[in-house]
Amino acid sequence: MKKIAVLLSGTGVFDGSEIHEAVLTLLCLTQAGASYQCFAPDIEQMHVVNHLTGEVNVDDKRNVLVESARIARGDIKATTELEIEKFDALVIPGGFGAAKNLCNFAVNGSDCDLAPEVEIFINEFIEAKKPVGFICISPVMIPKLYNAGARGTIGHDSETAHAFNLMGGQHVDANVEQIVVDEANKLVSTPAYMLAENIAQAHIGIEKLVNKILEFTA
Amino acid sequence: MKKIAVLLSGTGVFDGSEIHEAVLTLLCLTQAGASYQCFAPDIEQMHVVNHLTGEVNVDDKRNVLVESARIARGDIKATTELEIEKFDALVIPGGFGAAKNLCNFAVNGSDCDLAPEVEIFINEFIEAKKPVGFICISPVMIPKLYNAGARGTIGHDSETAHAFNLMGGQHVDANVEQIVVDEANKLVSTPAYMLAENIAQAHIGIEKLVNKILEFTA
Repeated sequence: MKKIAVLLSGTGVFDGSEIHEAVLTLLCLTQAGASYQCFAPDIEQMHVVNHLTGEVNVDDKRNVLVESARIARGDIKATTELEIEKFDALVIPGGFGAAKNLCNFAVNGSDCDLAPEVEIFINEFIEAKKPVGFICISPVMIPKLYNAGARGTIGHDSETAHAFNLMGGQHVDANVEQIVVDEANKLVSTPAYMLAENIAQAHIGIEKLVNKILEFTA
Repeated sequence: MKKIAVLLSGTGVFDGSEIHEAVLTLLCLTQAGASYQCFAPDIEQMHVVNHLTGEVNVDDKRNVLVESARIARGDIKATTELEIEKFDALVIPGGFGAAKNLCNFAVNGSDCDLAPEVEIFINEFIEAKKPVGFICISPVMIPKLYNAGARGTIGHDSETAHAFNLMGGQHVDANVEQIVVDEANKLVSTPAYMLAENIAQAHIGIEKLVNKILEFTA
C-alpha cells in the first residue's frame, strides 16, 4: 500500500489549510487504496482570522500543528518527525495557510521565503525524487523549491501567475477541472478553490491530482 | 434546485463537528445537484480541546458559530436566522460537538437536553414535516425531538444504544455502510465515524443518507 504524506497549514481557509481541499485529498487517497499521514510545522500561525467576520483576531494566537490536528482527527506529526523512506509522495492542500504559514507569499509576493522547517520537509521529497502535488495557492512555493522552469498552475489569476514566473517558474493556465503535470519533476498542481465555485468542482481536479501522484509512485 | 440546511457544531472531532463528515455531507449534496446553507448556534463551545494532545485547554474559549464558519468558508448563519420556508431538509453531521454543544449528551447521557436555540431550529424542520438526517453521534438527539418509537442508529455501541432506547427511541443496529430510515418521520441516520475505520467508509454511509434525504424531498 502506498503511503502519502499530506502537509497541512492549519484548519480554515483564511488562516490555515482550506478544509474542503484537505478532506477531499484524504478522501481521494483512501478511495484509491493509498494510506496517508498528515504533517504540519510546529510553528505559530501568522494570525488567527474570525471566519464569520473575516477580521483578524489580533489577541489570539494558535499553533499550526495543533490546529491542523483538527483535520487529521488527532493523528498528525510535526514536519521534523518525517522519516522520508516511509513515504512515496507528498500532497499539499491550499488555503491561505499555505501562503501565510508554510511560506510568506501572502505578505511578500515573489520575494517570499518558505518557513525553514517546511523547506527542509518538502526538499526531502524532492531530493528523493518523490512526486509532490500542490493544490490551490500552494503552487506558489514551486519556483522556490525546484529548478528554474518548473511548471505549475494557480489557475489563471494574472497577478499570481506573473509572480510565479518572476520567481523562476513557468506558469501554465488551467481550469478548475484540470491538472498541470511537470513530468520531469514528478510535480502536479491544480487550481481547486483558486477557481472552484463549489466543492464538487474542486473535487474533480483534486481527484485527478491524487491519481496522477499515485501513478508517479507506481 | 433543492436547498438543504447543514447544522454544524464547531470545527474538530473532539469539541465540534467531525470535519470529514461535515465536508462529505457538503460534497454529496453538491454532487447530487442540491445547494446548501450552513448554520450553527451562536453560543460558546462546552470547551476547547487541543486535538494534538487530546487535552482540554481550560483557559481557551471559542464560539460555535465562529468556529463552524471555518468549515463553511465564511458562508454561515446563526440558527436564529432560519427562514424555514426556504429549505427542503436538514442534515446534522456528528463529532463530539453534536453531543457537547448541540445537546449535552456527552455529560448527561439519557438525561440530556438540547441547547434551546438548537431545539427550536430542528423543530422547525420537524413541524414542517421536512426530512432530517443525523450522522454519527448526532442521532442521540432523535428521541428528544420525535415521538416515542422514532427509529435511529448510532452503529452498535450497546451503551449508547441503551441510552437511545431509555430516552424513548427505538435503536436499530447498523454497520458503517448502512443507513437506518424511519419512513413515517422522514428521518435518516448513519453511523459514520461511530464505526468508520477510514474516510472512504464514512463516505459510503453519508452518500446514502444524503441521497435518501433528497429522495424524501422529491
